[in-house]
Amino acid sequence: MHADITPGRNPYDVDLGPNDANYVPLSPLSFIRRTASVYPDRTAVIHGNLRRTWAQTYERCRRLASALAQRGIGRGDTVAIMAPNIPEFVEAHFGVPMTGAVLNCLNTRLDAEALAFILAHGEAKVLITDREFSPVITQALARLERKPFVIDIDDALAAGGERIGQTTYEDFIKVGDPDYAYRLPRNEWDAIALNYTSGTTGDPKGVVYHHRGAYLNALGNALAWGMPHFPVYLWTLPMFHCNGWCFPWTVTAMAGTHVCLRKVEAAAIFAALAEHGVTHLCGAPIVMATMINAPAAHKRKFTQKVSMMTAGASPPAAVLERMEALGIDVIHVYGLTEVYGPSVVCAWHPEWDALPSETKASLKARQGVVYPVEEDMMVADPATLAPVPRDGRTLGEIFLRGNIVMKGYLKNAATTRKSFEGGWFHTGDLAVRYDNGYVEIKDRSKDIIISGGENISSIEVEGVLYKHPAVQAAAVVAKADEKWGETPCAFVELKPGAQASAQEMIDWCRRHLAHFKCPRHVVFAELPKTSTGKIQKFVLRERARTA
Amino acid sequence: MHADITPGRNPYDVDLGPNDANYVPLSPLSFIRRTASVYPDRTAVIHGNLRRTWAQTYERCRRLASALAQRGIGRGDTVAIMAPNIPEFVEAHFGVPMTGAVLNCLNTRLDAEALAFILAHGEAKVLITDREFSPVITQALARLERKPFVIDIDDALAAGGERIGQTTYEDFIKVGDPDYAYRLPRNEWDAIALNYTSGTTGDPKGVVYHHRGAYLNALGNALAWGMPHFPVYLWTLPMFHCNGWCFPWTVTAMAGTHVCLRKVEAAAIFAALAEHGVTHLCGAPIVMATMINAPAAHKRKFTQKVSMMTAGASPPAAVLERMEALGIDVIHVYGLTEVYGPSVVCAWHPEWDALPSETKASLKARQGVVYPVEEDMMVADPATLAPVPRDGRTLGEIFLRGNIVMKGYLKNAATTRKSFEGGWFHTGDLAVRYDNGYVEIKDRSKDIIISGGENISSIEVEGVLYKHPAVQAAAVVAKADEKWGETPCAFVELKPGAQASAQEMIDWCRRHLAHFKCPRHVVFAELPKTSTGKIQKFVLRERARTA
Repeated sequence: MHADITPGRNPYDVDLGPNDANYVPLSPLSFIRRTASVYPDRTAVIHGNLRRTWAQTYERCRRLASALAQRGIGRGDTVAIMAPNIPEFVEAHFGVPMTGAVLNCLNTRLDAEALAFILAHGEAKVLITDREFSPVITQALARLERKPFVIDIDDALAAGGERIGQTTYEDFIKVGDPDYAYRLPRNEWDAIALNYTSGTTGDPKGVVYHHRGAYLNALGNALAWGMPHFPVYLWTLPMFHCNGWCFPWTVTAMAGTHVCLRKVEAAAIFAALAEHGVTHLCGAPIVMATMINAPAAHKRKFTQKVSMMTAGASPPAAVLERMEALGIDVIHVYGLTEVYGPSVVCAWHPEWDALPSETKASLKARQGVVYPVEEDMMVADPATLAPVPRDGRTLGEIFLRGNIVMKGYLKNAATTRKSFEGGWFHTGDLAVRYDNGYVEIKDRSKDIIISGGENISSIEVEGVLYKHPAVQAAAVVAKADEKWGETPCAFVELKPGAQASAQEMIDWCRRHLAHFKCPRHVVFAELPKTSTGKIQKFVLRERARTA
Repeated sequence: MHADITPGRNPYDVDLGPNDANYVPLSPLSFIRRTASVYPDRTAVIHGNLRRTWAQTYERCRRLASALAQRGIGRGDTVAIMAPNIPEFVEAHFGVPMTGAVLNCLNTRLDAEALAFILAHGEAKVLITDREFSPVITQALARLERKPFVIDIDDALAAGGERIGQTTYEDFIKVGDPDYAYRLPRNEWDAIALNYTSGTTGDPKGVVYHHRGAYLNALGNALAWGMPHFPVYLWTLPMFHCNGWCFPWTVTAMAGTHVCLRKVEAAAIFAALAEHGVTHLCGAPIVMATMINAPAAHKRKFTQKVSMMTAGASPPAAVLERMEALGIDVIHVYGLTEVYGPSVVCAWHPEWDALPSETKASLKARQGVVYPVEEDMMVADPATLAPVPRDGRTLGEIFLRGNIVMKGYLKNAATTRKSFEGGWFHTGDLAVRYDNGYVEIKDRSKDIIISGGENISSIEVEGVLYKHPAVQAAAVVAKADEKWGETPCAFVELKPGAQASAQEMIDWCRRHLAHFKCPRHVVFAELPKTSTGKIQKFVLRERARTA
């Protein structure tokens, strides 16, 4: 229940142990309780014409928790959610853990097969799902032997879809107790969230977060960003990505306002900036591209200071300049699902402001240094764990260590152990380190393509291509793309005598993969191999540039 | 070593335990490491003409730790320090805990007897002492059977005094290793600091802080204050008060600058505001009075936004207005030594800005709500622990609970247990709670007088008075004082036939007490008593007003 203490002879270890007065498990649940108590009437969420205060939102979270508990949901159970960035998703970040259960946010871009795998592997007992996703969820549920209890969110702003569940979210929470006396977790190490990552191997891996890490990274975001009280936060980053990088908890801790957004569209973004006084937003580079390339008619004026946190690919100088011209400051962070989203930040030095914009951009392109709440980072030889010199040239793998590193992968002890080998989390990302300690990623971990902020496992795509009857060998690499950051580019060797078109390959992939994972380009060619027969992806990456 | 986990059947408890990659004890030592690494060249301390960067300060902390370790100082040992707000005091907040030892900050206003009691009770093995305090320290050391190893700080700005130790601070740290590989505490529950409070009973009580609480309150200060990156912090609050309310750690975490100050004088304060761009400062109301009442010649102009955190007595409307006129925003907090200094804040609502200044002042006079990193507060009946109604009228005691509540009192299990009875820390302060949840202190815990930010135990003063041969009975209460906030006012019943003057009583007290504890007013009168013979202090407080 309490932190362990080591008894000893010295007086500081005697009669000074933890008790109910001086020890409380760290949990982001403490944030909503305080905010609802101190600022009950401030606006917690904005969604279309809907406004709810913190008192109302807190009450709805407790109703949700109470209703889940009435259905027998408790410690260690999994509750999944499939939704865009709507108020119910914010509520789930509190209502679910209030029962002791674990929130499993589903990536709305996944196909039925991947969703079914995740629901089965995570053993979800309840699934909360937005009407708009009923087609793919219906297919996913059909594949499950043990089906979860399904709750429909019947959002007035949802486009299409139908109710497929046993009840609706509103009916479900109606029976919940608004004063439900939930408890903090027995232990701050208890799981709070489960996030599946495509990773580099075939099946998604379930990354488990604990209350302690969620609490610390929620505060870490505020500290790293220098976030003031009462941020107005626009939800341009999917909440299913690492729990929205922990911002459901950060914004709540800072007594801010969650401005919801079902779809990341330029008109809606600028409307929120102009009408709701948005001060902060997050997103992949695609969000910046969407804003910069918006038609002039959509670009509404706003006067407040706005800051945007981005990750996934380094923002180029031109993008930074055009964002600045829009009146938006950009902060560059780096992270992975395994480290609660962002845990590295390109911490800015005020004196850099005076540098030429190209130099500033090259400094901002660096991933940077660890968050205040993460302990340590190194760039090191993956085999020996010897740190590389701080010369800005020697490539090594990024390793992280600290309190915002996951508990591990669910039901996957071998991979968990491997990812923590040597007492560091192995990110798989390759970087250099500069003399000022800032790191810069030079190469993605070999098998991941990041498209529109989504991770695509090239191995997964290759697996599908290999199943095509005409394919002898296939390799998929990232191709730089102005809009998406990267898109998958497939190199295919056909079987002797076999014939196939690029479109045929793309159609084949679309039948077996989520749309965003499918190659945009297909090149038929003999694959370059090393003497030991390993495909030389670095050669293909070079070729993909001009493909 | 690691947080305990409760094994169970559910998959979240299996193979997902803490390890070196995903668990690090919370400690403010992590802050200086990060700040020195990310911002090595930013100014860490300013003291007179001296400037040191974070790289230099971090190196000096490690040298101090290394030198202490070479003398055998380690986990659970006590290192005391007697100093004004100088760079060495900041360094001690890191260098001492780096060895695993506990920092015991001595109140420089105490007399030799109290200091000797503390050094003996705390079992200090090392005493770092500023030259200026050599007279009282010499007397204190003379009373000790086991004397600590004494290190003189020979500050160029110190007024008088002489070296009394075995070495000087500079000579001592010179032999320390600048790259000393200190370790974080084995456990975040390990003690980091020992602060003696006068409390309500005779002997001072040693309040023990742990690394976890120091880490959390350091961040809590930044969050409660909405502190941006790079604060320039002026040391108007004694660092010996609850470790400077944890600001040595806060300012370091935010990569700020510690502006040192040996003496709290108007000219020096305004000079720092004008010359160093000070953005933040803390202090008792006496500091505000000093600034407001400064001669015009001392009131230098400054252009930056400045915020001051105050505690100890509610700031009156006139003071708030005059501080605002100086260009300084005031934030009101409340705390005690037992809760790491401030742990309650009058969290401001932006919409209150529009209210008339008297209303604003009455809102700001409230002590407020818990810090984001404290869990809970209640105002309740001290006997039953039943919360009082939120009516702004019913008096109850303030109770606190959470991670910034002390480990307990050193070598004082009975008082520790008593202070935590019912799973809450008993503050002894009496307050009402308003319907918005904000608390306001209506009466100090019966026996404490706060003078110039210092706690004075009326029982201690009464004890001295009772020893005077002419005294039959004595009671000491607070008398409001424009300059000091409160001063002790003594009511004395003489023995039948005995004679004594007020001055005689004051002189008697001065022989046995620190100067600031002595009554300013002495009234000879029969003491009002209850039917059970208890002195009615509330009657005396009323009388003291006009005494």
